Amino acid sequence: MMQNYLSIQDIDSLQSWIAEARALKTDPRRHLNLGQGKTLGLLFFNNSLRTRLSTQKAAINLGMDVIVMNFGKEGWALEYREGAIMDQGAAEHVKEAARVVAQYCDIVGIRAFAGLKDREKDEAEEVLNGFSRYAGIPVLNLESSLQHPLQALADAITIAEHSKKDRPRIVLSWAPHPRPLPHAVANSFVDMMRLQQADFLITHPEGYELNPQVTNGIPIEYDQEKALAGADFVYVKNWSSYSDYGKVLLQDPSWMLTKKKLGKAQFMHCLPVRRNVIVEDAVLDGPQSLIIAQADNRTYAAQLVLKKMLEL
Amino acid sequence: MMQNYLSIQDIDSLQSWIAEARALKTDPRRHLNLGQGKTLGLLFFNNSLRTRLSTQKAAINLGMDVIVMNFGKEGWALEYREGAIMDQGAAEHVKEAARVVAQYCDIVGIRAFAGLKDREKDEAEEVLNGFSRYAGIPVLNLESSLQHPLQALADAITIAEHSKKDRPRIVLSWAPHPRPLPHAVANSFVDMMRLQQADFLITHPEGYELNPQVTNGIPIEYDQEKALAGADFVYVKNWSSYSDYGKVLLQDPSWMLTKKKLGKAQFMHCLPVRRNVIVEDAVLDGPQSLIIAQADNRTYAAQLVLKKMLEL
Amino acid sequence: MMQNYLSIQDIDSLQSWIAEARALKTDPRRHLNLGQGKTLGLLFFNNSLRTRLSTQKAAINLGMDVIVMNFGKEGWALEYREGAIMDQGAAEHVKEAARVVAQYCDIVGIRAFAGLKDREKDEAEEVLNGFSRYAGIPVLNLESSLQHPLQALADAITIAEHSKKDRPRIVLSWAPHPRPLPHAVANSFVDMMRLQQADFLITHPEGYELNPQVTNGIPIEYDQEKALAGADFVYVKNWSSYSDYGKVLLQDPSWMLTKKKLGKAQFMHCLPVRRNVIVEDAVLDGPQSLIIAQADNRTYAAQLVLKKMLEL
Repeated sequence: MMQNYLSIQDIDSLQSWIAEARALKTDPRRHLNLGQGKTLGLLFFNNSLRTRLSTQKAAINLGMDVIVMNFGKEGWALEYREGAIMDQGAAEHVKEAARVVAQYCDIVGIRAFAGLKDREKDEAEEVLNGFSRYAGIPVLNLESSLQHPLQALADAITIAEHSKKDRPRIVLSWAPHPRPLPHAVANSFVDMMRLQQADFLITHPEGYELNPQVTNGIPIEYDQEKALAGADFVYVKNWSSYSDYGKVLLQDPSWMLTKKKLGKAQFMHCLPVRRNVIVEDAVLDGPQSLIIAQADNRTYAAQLVLKKMLEL
Repeated sequence: MMQNYLSIQDIDSLQSWIAEARALKTDPRRHLNLGQGKTLGLLFFNNSLRTRLSTQKAAINLGMDVIVMNFGKEGWALEYREGAIMDQGAAEHVKEAARVVAQYCDIVGIRAFAGLKDREKDEAEEVLNGFSRYAGIPVLNLESSLQHPLQALADAITIAEHSKKDRPRIVLSWAPHPRPLPHAVANSFVDMMRLQQADFLITHPEGYELNPQVTNGIPIEYDQEKALAGADFVYVKNWSSYSDYGKVLLQDPSWMLTKKKLGKAQFMHCLPVRRNVIVEDAVLDGPQSLIIAQADNRTYAAQLVLKKMLEL
Repeated sequence: MMQNYLSIQDIDSLQSWIAEARALKTDPRRHLNLGQGKTLGLLFFNNSLRTRLSTQKAAINLGMDVIVMNFGKEGWALEYREGAIMDQGAAEHVKEAARVVAQYCDIVGIRAFAGLKDREKDEAEEVLNGFSRYAGIPVLNLESSLQHPLQALADAITIAEHSKKDRPRIVLSWAPHPRPLPHAVANSFVDMMRLQQADFLITHPEGYELNPQVTNGIPIEYDQEKALAGADFVYVKNWSSYSDYGKVLLQDPSWMLTKKKLGKAQFMHCLPVRRNVIVEDAVLDGPQSLIIAQADNRTYAAQLVLKKMLEL
């Protein structure tokens, strides 16, 4: 039983969740009656491809109706501060917006990325927290400032499907990218690894440490080659600096993942991925890549979470 | 029986409409078969939150399929003038656009706000009237230059649900806002009050008179305190000047509604509302606020109108 | 049986297609079970009215679920070049995007216009071809750089419905337009005429020759008056220069179609149409205009193609 799915902390038992998601996958429309007469609202404050399509597909598989809204483009700016005198840009307070949306929907999904300008503001998760505080209906995180728990759940399903070991060696490796990217995918993947039987470590250049509260106790290896040795799964992802918040400190192409570096490991990435910047073509086009399986599992991750919300 | 719902004048019997809407609310999906195989097209020329979601929800409750289009962003500019030589920005005439949309939809909803630059143009209601003239299918006003009749119908349902008197005292009060806003909500509320058993008056600063054809015969009190005395319902709304068309003449915060001014009345607003500019937090967060009930009733107002169109 | 519908070349028998589309039109929801549990993804890289609405309607008539995405506005720029080092604007390669979309959809429609800046690039049809190469699911062309085969199919259905002769005289006439327009509609119409029993010719000013590979063997008459003499159907369309690629060479209003020039012929245009620039009001508002019939047939053209894809 669950109310919201905001972060990995909302998973009560990873193994049973994975088992149930894999069962859904064998017959995705088995629960077509469960969502009859129920409406999912998807509010996008940022762009999306996989999340947009897979979450709609998941809801359709459960017989739900879906209403999609690109909030910023089709609506207006929201205010999040308590007690604000709203004489500037924001036309509506999240208190009203959330309670209003809840009149028309049974579950609401929210995508709102980190702005990467102001760490304190990003860590307040004002959009996601504003909606989950005031909506009064289950809230689904479609990637927030700090978390992307649907991606991490799809990743865990994918690892379970492709692992040949009870305790695989899993490496999260930073890779270069021309633009500053948020930490959400990395954060949620790290959180997920804590629920997983795995020999898990992180590799990145110095200065690219994630929030130490997220990585507390997890081995960090600054030498990528050492880190990758003997890996079963290599999860590659760029993120901007956390200490020098939101900055691109380094674009060193030697951190790009290559076929040679991958060795016998299986390759994972959340997508979208910049070819020959994050990872070379030979990896993405080769048989060790799991990226399409991960994308496919986004449907079943979302469907599992929606199913649990509907069963409340 | 009805063809279009363009303004309050399309309501034949308010009391029976309210009764029917309240009946729908007790079992919203009772008429799920009525809309089977019927398609509602929603064309937005302006942004929307409540109207977008509640009208979709209403159609879903009736079993209709819904196609949403943000006309300006996903389509192109339309021409409305008869005989125009279309060698400028507009790529299509409303004559074609309306007749084409009618090939794919059974009912079409149109949202097109006043531009507030040219009163004559706004009063021509070219978008709404263009579609209703040429479409040949029922047209639903989702807020036009001059009217927001779905909002006013939701307001009337809300008043009926919350009134303790046969003839309540209802006050429409202007409030300050940093940007120029249209007159549509106020116009339709005034029109609706003519169908209502009510002791109705309007209060606003001098210079903020609505179109005198709209308010003809309705008491106007320039002293807000006097106006609010003994009110049962206070409907607060900003609008820009009508005589000095589309201008913000005054931002005097003393016109903001406060808990003290509200007294024992119930508070209404169509939303979105700027907190501590239009009305103070204490009102919105207190038990006398009906704003969420109003937003909820948007679904049943739309559903009632769609149902009447489907029953034609 | 068909896989993709990318161009007129994917039609195996025009006469049987037209017959089947006309049968669908008599009872559009007869095959409501065929699409149950199937999802159509519509990806718009350019704006759309008729295609957006008619293709959704067609899918609804077949019982399909539809997911619409405005790719550029709601997603991000894609890379199409093999081996690209993606350190510039494009965030994702079509290889991934296409394969990912195919995880969530059973059929995907793509609209991506010619940019009209670089002929070689436009002729590579990178968006349509990228998706059809990598998606691994049936791809539906919603208008690409070079082709608009759903429009041409709707046109063929319309001609079949309105022709009084076994071999009508059909004229494709260029008309002036203030902005440079693509060649896709004209190309597909020409291709369609090759499958049609018709006495077909093209008329346009010198310099407006279409791609000679498209028009190879088809009579071109530079004198519009001569061309139109005795026509049964006049299809009017603007396109920019092909030889002086993407340029507007001429805006000569004497090429506008008038009621007088039309004679006894029936008038066709794909819409949107600029009144009194492409064609005068008297034609569009008169009884010889087939434009609304063409728009209506867009639904049945799309529905026929989707039906064939679902029957695979």
